[in-house]
Amino acid sequence: MLRLRLAAAAWCSAPRRPLSVSPRRLAAGSALKTPKGTRDHPPAQVALRDRLVGTVVACFKRHGAAAIDTPVLELRETLMGKYGDNSKLIYELQDQGGELLALRYDLTVPFARYLAMNKITNIKRYHIAKVYRRDNPATTRGRYREFYQCDFDIAGQFDPMIPDAECLKIVHEILSDLQLGDFLIKVNDRRILDGMFAVCGVPDSKFRTICSSVDKLDKVPWEDVKNEMVGEKGLSPEAADRIGEYVQLHGGLDLIEQLLQDPKLSQNKLAKEGLGDMKLLFEYLTLFGITGKISFDLSLARGLDYYTGVIYEAVLLQQQNDHVEDPVSVGSVAGGGRYDGLVGMFDPKGRKVPCVGVSIGIERIFSILEQRVEASEEKIRTTETQVLVASAQKKLLEERLKLISELWDAGIKAEILYKKNPKLLNQLQYCEDTGIPLVAIVGEQELKDGVVKLRVVATREEVNIRRENLIEEIRMRTSQL
Amino acid sequence: MLRLRLAAAAWCSAPRRPLSVSPRRLAAGSALKTPKGTRDHPPAQVALRDRLVGTVVACFKRHGAAAIDTPVLELRETLMGKYGDNSKLIYELQDQGGELLALRYDLTVPFARYLAMNKITNIKRYHIAKVYRRDNPATTRGRYREFYQCDFDIAGQFDPMIPDAECLKIVHEILSDLQLGDFLIKVNDRRILDGMFAVCGVPDSKFRTICSSVDKLDKVPWEDVKNEMVGEKGLSPEAADRIGEYVQLHGGLDLIEQLLQDPKLSQNKLAKEGLGDMKLLFEYLTLFGITGKISFDLSLARGLDYYTGVIYEAVLLQQQNDHVEDPVSVGSVAGGGRYDGLVGMFDPKGRKVPCVGVSIGIERIFSILEQRVEASEEKIRTTETQVLVASAQKKLLEERLKLISELWDAGIKAEILYKKNPKLLNQLQYCEDTGIPLVAIVGEQELKDGVVKLRVVATREEVNIRRENLIEEIRMRTSQL
Repeated sequence: MLRLRLAAAAWCSAPRRPLSVSPRRLAAGSALKTPKGTRDHPPAQVALRDRLVGTVVACFKRHGAAAIDTPVLELRETLMGKYGDNSKLIYELQDQGGELLALRYDLTVPFARYLAMNKITNIKRYHIAKVYRRDNPATTRGRYREFYQCDFDIAGQFDPMIPDAECLKIVHEILSDLQLGDFLIKVNDRRILDGMFAVCGVPDSKFRTICSSVDKLDKVPWEDVKNEMVGEKGLSPEAADRIGEYVQLHGGLDLIEQLLQDPKLSQNKLAKEGLGDMKLLFEYLTLFGITGKISFDLSLARGLDYYTGVIYEAVLLQQQNDHVEDPVSVGSVAGGGRYDGLVGMFDPKGRKVPCVGVSIGIERIFSILEQRVEASEEKIRTTETQVLVASAQKKLLEERLKLISELWDAGIKAEILYKKNPKLLNQLQYCEDTGIPLVAIVGEQELKDGVVKLRVVATREEVNIRRENLIEEIRMRTSQL
Repeated sequence: MLRLRLAAAAWCSAPRRPLSVSPRRLAAGSALKTPKGTRDHPPAQVALRDRLVGTVVACFKRHGAAAIDTPVLELRETLMGKYGDNSKLIYELQDQGGELLALRYDLTVPFARYLAMNKITNIKRYHIAKVYRRDNPATTRGRYREFYQCDFDIAGQFDPMIPDAECLKIVHEILSDLQLGDFLIKVNDRRILDGMFAVCGVPDSKFRTICSSVDKLDKVPWEDVKNEMVGEKGLSPEAADRIGEYVQLHGGLDLIEQLLQDPKLSQNKLAKEGLGDMKLLFEYLTLFGITGKISFDLSLARGLDYYTGVIYEAVLLQQQNDHVEDPVSVGSVAGGGRYDGLVGMFDPKGRKVPCVGVSIGIERIFSILEQRVEASEEKIRTTETQVLVASAQKKLLEERLKLISELWDAGIKAEILYKKNPKLLNQLQYCEDTGIPLVAIVGEQELKDGVVKLRVVATREEVNIRRENLIEEIRMRTSQL
């Protein structure tokens, strides 16, 4: 876990604490820890996360999305049969008087359940919340059993590829806004994959399992994937080799045109549909001016079973040290696609609601931002206090309380130290530690003169402000910061 | 459950839906529901809740609080032995490979665990999150098994009653800011209660159980409480009668002074301490100018075991219909107090961290706001879209996409209908339904002239704006709204 040298969100008397605290190091009793794969977020982490989520939500709202909220608990049967092998990772609760409950595994299945239950046929919504996976957590690599997901989805029957293009625009905007460096959005279509499998001679019954082999291509070389297809999954070496040729292909409109002329693929109905839509998608992406960071990539397969059309995944790129080779991917930070059948699984009459969506990998992005903050030694403020109400002399607690009450009532963010007679040095140190920019100092002389001494922490400038002008002065000075 | 006539956050083609949707009415299959005592929040509810939470968080930040986040899951042993009889309401998970886990019951015990685990001796934090109680939910009265809590706490060793007074100031500010009508904050102290029990002749061993009888006084008459004390709990009728005299008392500084002179109470060390601090508290509250809504009330006991000092509870007051009687309480909307021993229960060496805090009852306040919205038929916008990019003629999808892309890149909140050739009427209707104030209309003539027709939905005013001035014009017009 990272240990950052950030300002702790605590009193001036508290020792500096790292941003993340390792439970194991601190737990003295066996009970003094959080459950395996979970963690507390101290103030500096919450502040950084709020900044990240704020950028993402601003983008979702810019695209007209509304927020919904669903329970953390779902009926066990709502979740079962939706995640393939991963269903074993679902947390189940003890029988609650006949109800078998589980913790949600993602936000997509609850969203589909919500649409079917309320007979909603179109909505554009976002949802940012915790999900639960009983995985073996690699907490050192930022993977946890309790983590946030951050989803945007468009449900409804619309003209082809317009919402799909908007999802890609959203990914492009968010990764640009977050200034995470260079990125690439890979795009493919399940129909093109299935058509490709068909023309390569993969039996229908093996489509999904061969698809999950292809999904590994971003992590292991083709030879290993081929061995899995042939050795474990019983595909003929000839079929595997044919797949091997296709999955090397990636490009833009040119490649789409080329495949539309491909003697085999062009004869397959699914592939032709997928390629036609891919062409339309790229036309829309051209209008959005974002094709420079988008690659039609036949090796992209995505893990989940429920995708039915376009799929996509965004990866951050990193220049290799020697700057000779092409930039390499350092991991997926967003992904999604079209899932037109999921809502129908919940509807008693099987009525479908076409959906397309994207999930922003905010946990991974958070890890990257955390490392960046660590490297820069930037101090993250965990509070927004504008002014500390202080005194230089004893017996002025009452005057401090009267003044701070006026400030609070005027909407000024203000604090005092909870001491009857704090030392001025401690009060100034508290401002340094927590980033409070101003100090309003009351003293005998100031009270007599009807003024307050306003001190700017950064410059140590001090100026007497008439009491009746103080609120305006604080507002003016903190609006410039 | 309430059914409000609010604008649904959905497409213009969607039927209007009530703010709350009863799962039972809609579930066709047995699985098509949320777990007992839980509910989905549709966009109009989330928007209203965000408004409420925004007001509360603004107050917490005004007082310099930082946010923390803790897991929804806690070790079972962390929660056990903290909630008395209510421990049976804790949700437990199935054994996770030797870890016995439970869902958090409140935010206070996890906060104390967090402080002890990380050896934090002072912090001012807020936390807004869901908690879980396997209660028999009265969902008609707004009580659920999954619900939000909204806590502010100050931990640390400070001079007496300064943080306690700030907690009461916070309750006063929040209830004033929310404009919920008249309210009263009742204040008492566990030490005064215990001292009172002692001088009334209650044996030490019966303090907590007699305290929980007193706690019922806001719901049942004294005679019933006395019967419980004497009949069920074996207290002597004389002791009960002595308690009966004290618990009728409520007032301000006068009452405190009177009790400090009380021949019996003034001889009791605990009561004297509590009364001394209560006097100090009222002096600070006088400086804050809020004693008008605060009542020292000897009948206030609060349910939880862990309080050790000052306790308080805010109730909304409602004028009776005939306006003759005093206003009556319509329920508690905030509560809290001092708990100096809880952190020590987690520390291996029993080191104490004094804490005082307040929990804002946002679920109850949300129900009140929901009823108010229903009564006013106010339309709650669920999105923030400033402009719909529309066209009056066919074959202009590409132009719409180009324009909306420019707007998004400039930070304008904009939508289009996902149709190649939507009718202008449908586009205008969508604005009416979702509250979008402006429409940017592209047409053949406008394209030729290098302008966009900007329509104000409310007034139907239309004006041609040069393309290069459009973004500034939209910003200017929506900043006035």
